[in-house]
Amino acid sequence: MNEDLMPVKTILDHGYLKLVETWGSDQRIVESARMSTGKGFLGWGVEETCEGCDGSGTGTKMRGHGPGSLCPRCQGRKRAINRPGDEKLLKYLYDNKHATPFEVAGATFEIMAPIFVFREWHRHRTQSYNEQSARYEPLPDLNYVPSVERLLLNSKTNKQAGTIKGAAELTEPGARDFQDAIVSLYASAEGVYQQALKEGVPKELARLVLPVGRYSRMRASANLRNWLAFLTLRDDPHAQWEIRQYAATLREMLTGSFPRTMAIFGDGRP
Amino acid sequence: MNEDLMPVKTILDHGYLKLVETWGSDQRIVESARMSTGKGFLGWGVEETCEGCDGSGTGTKMRGHGPGSLCPRCQGRKRAINRPGDEKLLKYLYDNKHATPFEVAGATFEIMAPIFVFREWHRHRTQSYNEQSARYEPLPDLNYVPSVERLLLNSKTNKQAGTIKGAAELTEPGARDFQDAIVSLYASAEGVYQQALKEGVPKELARLVLPVGRYSRMRASANLRNWLAFLTLRDDPHAQWEIRQYAATLREMLTGSFPRTMAIFGDGRP
Amino acid sequence: MNEDLMPVKTILDHGYLKLVETWGSDQRIVESARMSTGKGFLGWGVEETCEGCDGSGTGTKMRGHGPGSLCPRCQGRKRAINRPGDEKLLKYLYDNKHATPFEVAGATFEIMAPIFVFREWHRHRTQSYNEQSARYEPLPDLNYVPSVERLLLNSKTNKQAGTIKGAAELTEPGARDFQDAIVSLYASAEGVYQQALKEGVPKELARLVLPVGRYSRMRASANLRNWLAFLTLRDDPHAQWEIRQYAATLREMLTGSFPRTMAIFGDGRP
Amino acid sequence: MNEDLMPVKTILDHGYLKLVETWGSDQRIVESARMSTGKGFLGWGVEETCEGCDGSGTGTKMRGHGPGSLCPRCQGRKRAINRPGDEKLLKYLYDNKHATPFEVAGATFEIMAPIFVFREWHRHRTQSYNEQSARYEPLPDLNYVPSVERLLLNSKTNKQAGTIKGAAELTEPGARDFQDAIVSLYASAEGVYQQALKEGVPKELARLVLPVGRYSRMRASANLRNWLAFLTLRDDPHAQWEIRQYAATLREMLTGSFPRTMAIFGDGRP
Repeated sequence: MNEDLMPVKTILDHGYLKLVETWGSDQRIVESARMSTGKGFLGWGVEETCEGCDGSGTGTKMRGHGPGSLCPRCQGRKRAINRPGDEKLLKYLYDNKHATPFEVAGATFEIMAPIFVFREWHRHRTQSYNEQSARYEPLPDLNYVPSVERLLLNSKTNKQAGTIKGAAELTEPGARDFQDAIVSLYASAEGVYQQALKEGVPKELARLVLPVGRYSRMRASANLRNWLAFLTLRDDPHAQWEIRQYAATLREMLTGSFPRTMAIFGDGRP
Repeated sequence: MNEDLMPVKTILDHGYLKLVETWGSDQRIVESARMSTGKGFLGWGVEETCEGCDGSGTGTKMRGHGPGSLCPRCQGRKRAINRPGDEKLLKYLYDNKHATPFEVAGATFEIMAPIFVFREWHRHRTQSYNEQSARYEPLPDLNYVPSVERLLLNSKTNKQAGTIKGAAELTEPGARDFQDAIVSLYASAEGVYQQALKEGVPKELARLVLPVGRYSRMRASANLRNWLAFLTLRDDPHAQWEIRQYAATLREMLTGSFPRTMAIFGDGRP
Repeated sequence: MNEDLMPVKTILDHGYLKLVETWGSDQRIVESARMSTGKGFLGWGVEETCEGCDGSGTGTKMRGHGPGSLCPRCQGRKRAINRPGDEKLLKYLYDNKHATPFEVAGATFEIMAPIFVFREWHRHRTQSYNEQSARYEPLPDLNYVPSVERLLLNSKTNKQAGTIKGAAELTEPGARDFQDAIVSLYASAEGVYQQALKEGVPKELARLVLPVGRYSRMRASANLRNWLAFLTLRDDPHAQWEIRQYAATLREMLTGSFPRTMAIFGDGRP
Repeated sequence: MNEDLMPVKTILDHGYLKLVETWGSDQRIVESARMSTGKGFLGWGVEETCEGCDGSGTGTKMRGHGPGSLCPRCQGRKRAINRPGDEKLLKYLYDNKHATPFEVAGATFEIMAPIFVFREWHRHRTQSYNEQSARYEPLPDLNYVPSVERLLLNSKTNKQAGTIKGAAELTEPGARDFQDAIVSLYASAEGVYQQALKEGVPKELARLVLPVGRYSRMRASANLRNWLAFLTLRDDPHAQWEIRQYAATLREMLTGSFPRTMAIFGDGRP
């Protein structure tokens, strides 16, 4: 697919998530799981009304019957009934942690995000990464400044998302002060960086002053099993709010290609 | 893709290799590698003759110029010159073991092969497997009988492919005797298997008598980096002849989707 | 450790499980988890006698009370109470799937088991395997014959462990007949195998007739996180009875080196 | 092992590498490889006395000489010679990329290093990591300041280690200026950080200003195969000088536990 046609969504102040490519499908997952019995993919459920019995027979399950078969209730020729279909198997696989079949599907994303987000992201060791390198090229001067609303999201219950002991209660003016302070620090860091580059400090050392709020860019590729594992941890209230914005968008983007799997995954999640 | 349209090739007496799906491309690999510098994919080289200057300008490199641009030498409208292109980067990546970019492409195959072949195959721990299960359904009575020619391929140099110490030299009649002996043994095993199943021996125990020459079936999915690692070991003279037949076909099938990568991989290989 | 001193236990008729080595410990797991806060290992809980109530309050577990607190029973000042106890953190890690710290411990086993057991085992792709190779040396003539009791364990509820549709009910004499049949089939296979080896059939082909009930031998090494994943699937009523015998013993052997982790893992398991 | 007894070595201005634990051994690697033939560990080469020269030639190492060869010192026929020694197998395994046996040994390290070093380190996806978290506890104010000598190590041949195009030639005073500039930037960042923490900015956001030159701490655990892969990339002239200091020390520390493997690994390396 041409890069211009890839779905993309802006995240935070300068970041984005772009869906480069997906492979496999809900059907492929079922096909792989059915290797064990040799039965193959049988079909998704289709809701249809039986015209032969005026719809009164719609309660009857007609599993495995093709659209041309007779209505099992009225035996009429024109019928069409709800078959539960292979969604059931898909759900069974997921619920019972038969995870291998979900490895035959997958997706590649391009992500622009602050370094501290990538630091969390890279702990997922089952993805394939290629990231911008400040050893090759200086990083562009893009830095994350959290909004006031975000800064005020101070969790009382999630220890990791909280403040230090004895801290003051953050106020709106305090949040604005912090914004000013980091904008100014980002500018100082950029100043030192550019000056150092010009004076002949190797790029790999000039970068030492760059804050973890600076943006970087990468492609990440993984199979669906591992994207679901990523979402389980990162599209979750315990995850840092910033990475969660990426995870939530990623989950949405996967839904386009794997609607049935993502619906099952979503059941009962926050 | 519909199963009927998947490329498939017969291997050994009852086996096959079917290409279910590939993802990524030579271009995607280059795009991923270029994340480090931010330059993206620049284009493949195209060999063309510049008609505008009667070919005398062909020595000039025209990197990055599309097929519609002017000849840089004569500025004529009809031109076309050999650009080295991103094949060079692809080769550099491969030769220098920058392997991560090759993880953004991949392929899924369906394989029917004897159990002893799967035993070797499953040692590759970076593939995703879903195999037929004799605990679910009895295995069909298909068994591998090596041809006489194959039987006579007795390696003197490869210890693993050789005979025991002090063995006789296998003759053509000896090879035929062995064929008869295993056909007969396969039949006995199938007899015991069917009898046991009928009498109520659990499927998972009745299978104990099945020889490793019996066929099974699976799907295997992996990224291109790992398929290349598989080929390095299995499309090799040290590999057992049988798995090598699968590997050679697999390599050929990958060439359709990743022609440039597979050409580089093939260079200098047996 | 000298091989003679390694703990070993016989399994099935000719198999065994030998504990080659473990590394890490319950304490190492806690130490690794505490990297996040920098606090290190604090110590396991110790039950001590309360001096304030002359020991009569010792029945009360005082876990989680710091060294300066009062005795919860007598409220006396002179007490000796539990140190906080890092068992709590260990349990928290396990219950909340913070699995990485469990990767710093591990174990290596040597296993002799029938090929069909190894076929299931090798699906665990996070272990390191080195197995006997019938390409190098002929496999010794050891084959698994299930006991009559085992053969009669026909599950009505677990589809995978059951019989084919329409099978007779297995009787004790039927089970004995099956034993006779496979003993005889094993002997035939061995006959063909030896004859083929002598006549110069390459070892890698002579082995085709060997049934999956034949024994092989390997070493398997993995970290504790992955051994627990193995046990979750294989020391479970859904697993085939044979591999479960290995898993149950393996679990027991791990308990010696990781008593606290294995106790937590065992809670609530069958 | 008690933490106080673990070997530790200082690296850079505030970093260190501590060897927490190793498992397996050169012998275990051989044992695992020998699973294929069932022969087990045969023993390392043993130096024996040459009878031909009355023992006076014993200073000569006769490693690798077969039992029928002459004494290399006195050329006498009566010599007592080395057993072939399993060093040979170990070398064969390594040279021919039979890598699985090297997975039964391994090591855990504790590392204190700047964040940009960890960013490179974490790309190795086969290690197990547990790192200090700035979401839990504020990071201590330790930051990496490269020495003047290090700053002047500007590679002309390695693009990644070089300067931007058109940069001036770095001079010693220029290097000192850069040191001053980053020390000052580090102090500003720490100022903003502490102020933000006090005013109630959540720890996970206050950290945004921390530069990648700040130190963090982690434990990393991997098997020997994967440590060798790490060293191949990081104890190499193409690696950034800083991570190479860690890699070189790590290699040295592994030598204590795996002297034969590390000697083979070191042959022909820079």
